[in-house]
Amino acid sequence: MAGNSKNTGGTPPKKKLARSPLAPARFPSVAPVAGVRLAGRAVGLKKHKGVKDLMVAAFAPGTTAAGVLTRSKCPSAPVEWCRTILPRGRARALVVNSGNANAFTGNAGDLQVAQTAAEAAHLFGCRAQDVFLASTGVIGEPRAPDYIAGKLPQMKRALGEKSWKSAAEAIMTTDTFPKAASRKVKIGKAEVTLSGFAKGSGMIAPDMATMLAFVFTDAKIPAKVLQRLVRTAADDSFNAITVDSDTSTSDTVLLFATGQAKGQPRIASAGDSALADFKAALKDIFVDLAQQIVRDGEGAQKFVTINVTGAESKRAARTVGLAIANSPLVKTAIAGEDPNWGRIVMAVGKAGEKADRDRLSIGIGDTRITENGQLVAGYDEAPVAAYMKGDEITIDVDLGIGRGRGTVWTCDLTHGYITINADYRS
Amino acid sequence: MAGNSKNTGGTPPKKKLARSPLAPARFPSVAPVAGVRLAGRAVGLKKHKGVKDLMVAAFAPGTTAAGVLTRSKCPSAPVEWCRTILPRGRARALVVNSGNANAFTGNAGDLQVAQTAAEAAHLFGCRAQDVFLASTGVIGEPRAPDYIAGKLPQMKRALGEKSWKSAAEAIMTTDTFPKAASRKVKIGKAEVTLSGFAKGSGMIAPDMATMLAFVFTDAKIPAKVLQRLVRTAADDSFNAITVDSDTSTSDTVLLFATGQAKGQPRIASAGDSALADFKAALKDIFVDLAQQIVRDGEGAQKFVTINVTGAESKRAARTVGLAIANSPLVKTAIAGEDPNWGRIVMAVGKAGEKADRDRLSIGIGDTRITENGQLVAGYDEAPVAAYMKGDEITIDVDLGIGRGRGTVWTCDLTHGYITINADYRS
Repeated sequence: MAGNSKNTGGTPPKKKLARSPLAPARFPSVAPVAGVRLAGRAVGLKKHKGVKDLMVAAFAPGTTAAGVLTRSKCPSAPVEWCRTILPRGRARALVVNSGNANAFTGNAGDLQVAQTAAEAAHLFGCRAQDVFLASTGVIGEPRAPDYIAGKLPQMKRALGEKSWKSAAEAIMTTDTFPKAASRKVKIGKAEVTLSGFAKGSGMIAPDMATMLAFVFTDAKIPAKVLQRLVRTAADDSFNAITVDSDTSTSDTVLLFATGQAKGQPRIASAGDSALADFKAALKDIFVDLAQQIVRDGEGAQKFVTINVTGAESKRAARTVGLAIANSPLVKTAIAGEDPNWGRIVMAVGKAGEKADRDRLSIGIGDTRITENGQLVAGYDEAPVAAYMKGDEITIDVDLGIGRGRGTVWTCDLTHGYITINADYRS
Repeated sequence: MAGNSKNTGGTPPKKKLARSPLAPARFPSVAPVAGVRLAGRAVGLKKHKGVKDLMVAAFAPGTTAAGVLTRSKCPSAPVEWCRTILPRGRARALVVNSGNANAFTGNAGDLQVAQTAAEAAHLFGCRAQDVFLASTGVIGEPRAPDYIAGKLPQMKRALGEKSWKSAAEAIMTTDTFPKAASRKVKIGKAEVTLSGFAKGSGMIAPDMATMLAFVFTDAKIPAKVLQRLVRTAADDSFNAITVDSDTSTSDTVLLFATGQAKGQPRIASAGDSALADFKAALKDIFVDLAQQIVRDGEGAQKFVTINVTGAESKRAARTVGLAIANSPLVKTAIAGEDPNWGRIVMAVGKAGEKADRDRLSIGIGDTRITENGQLVAGYDEAPVAAYMKGDEITIDVDLGIGRGRGTVWTCDLTHGYITINADYRS
């Protein structure tokens, strides 16, 4: 991480964190995307020599862009920049650094953004407004305007079609493994590719972690359509995960479409039936990346799926699911392998959505625990306690009110979380 | 705690918790209140013999009542009962048990409530609707209808004017010390007394903890006026504290006025100028009890005051304060004695209230860290880091937007919290 600890608003952990026990066995195979070249390199932004800290992707002319950005009222300078240029819907480059978040950096932060975009525009022969930016790392430490810009020429020389793992590694902070996913799908008779990568572990420690996700496709999709697709897919994926309820100053999800796929039918609207498989694949890759972020949750020992059904609406189901997922008491019960359904009742009650004590049904794994507001006759806790010793936990909650449903993913709250976030100071 | 662990939704800690390091040195002196007799006894509701588990207070005829109840959508049976009878505004008795929350107990819970109120009405010569009830303890374990009612005759015989400490102890669950406060104040020329007690440590673990507070006064105040006073005072006290953001099924704050004070002028409205000192004392005693609850927060090592100024409104200031107080990242930073102001920026940003990065000022203790969105020139972290080793931490946040202000109290998030809530299972 960058800088001394005097004015960082936080000192990074002294030692490398162990790989999450919930991490996938290996980095996935990621298919190249026509019209995308990328690089991830160690250019000296981070203190530790040789640790990758800068990612650049260059796109073919005609690439469209869409995205969703943090709702934080104190967003980083790159987030404000992306918000400004997103309505144009055009992209030729993406520059992402780790080590410094360029958040709470005032005018200096805006200057750095301007110079980075200008230099990338110069190198890639485009306008500054075609250059998307994201930063993750220490908050509140302004850098010189050429902090990133000065590194871009060497990044341009390193660009290649296969550098997905390096790219995924270059945006990591407290992440313990690089996160990527790839899918192939048809639009009409044309095969198109979706490939992407993400980061995030604490959700979200602004001085070290942040949720970033970038997905690239060779499909040809107008920016307005792309924006609708990304918003819908993000809602059921990145907006359905939580590690600790905190929201970063820098959360950024971007989708780029190069239009290089051959023989693809023209797409005019998000409702086009030719997009059905593409939409499913986009949601699938978003969910895959989002779940990998949860699996790297700080201190996580268990991956938790919370299915809420019978809610008044889809929105209500999500709210109830997040109330359960964010409850420290539920999360510590899961860490303690305690089938403490009373805490689930509490979390449902505090969500503020319509609920009826006498209709509430709760299950853990394959066991129904309560039905219609009463403990199931003959309920035996022993098999549920045994189930909770596993590292994949599913909780089902039926509110019995309506037809709204939703799924939320989270992890448990362990001593590891406290250690990472409280104990690392010397 | 009551019952076997098979269907409790949670097993209580095996060993007695150590007294909180933030506890007051001793139980305060509590003045009797004319028209109030009370008792706290061990009657065998809790498993461990000799641990107090039932509190009864009896009131003089003419006593008025007011209160605020949990906003949980899955409230306990006693909460639903209190909500039903509160509009009458009359009280002759209060019955509170610990060990079983009578929450998520369906019809059985309602039956138990009915029988308790009926038996108390019989004993005290009043209507069932004059009997207020509260329960705290294990959730989801129905009890026989006479679970409490059968113990009331012996409680009646034990009533006395000075049993404040026993009463405060009888409503404890995971609390590590009994909480009480007392004030004397004038209404006109009449001296009146306010005395009360409270419980709560996890805020709120429904299977063991819950926030309960009961305050008694000999002032003569109509129920409608009393209700306005209690709502206002609760807003700046019990609604301004948080330990872990969780909301109990059973949270209950009740205020009883016996009207036994001599020579008090008649009060017709909450705006009566004769009430000024009484209102201040009521808020003061509520804040005192609320802060004691925070000081007994599960695993708490530090008491944290968060002052928010310059917000768009009072409500916005409260929201921002609670966002900071509930942030696991802020709370773990405080536990780690880390002046991590970047996490405070994050929490302000996620609160969703109007904020402007370039106007935000943050201070910890006596040190201004940022002003108008920039790190203060020459900021030195060393004295702030030293300050954070203390056990009373004050954080000041000025949003620079408007004139709204508010204060929130919380504690840090430590390994102790995880240990209490996750690790106790055998």
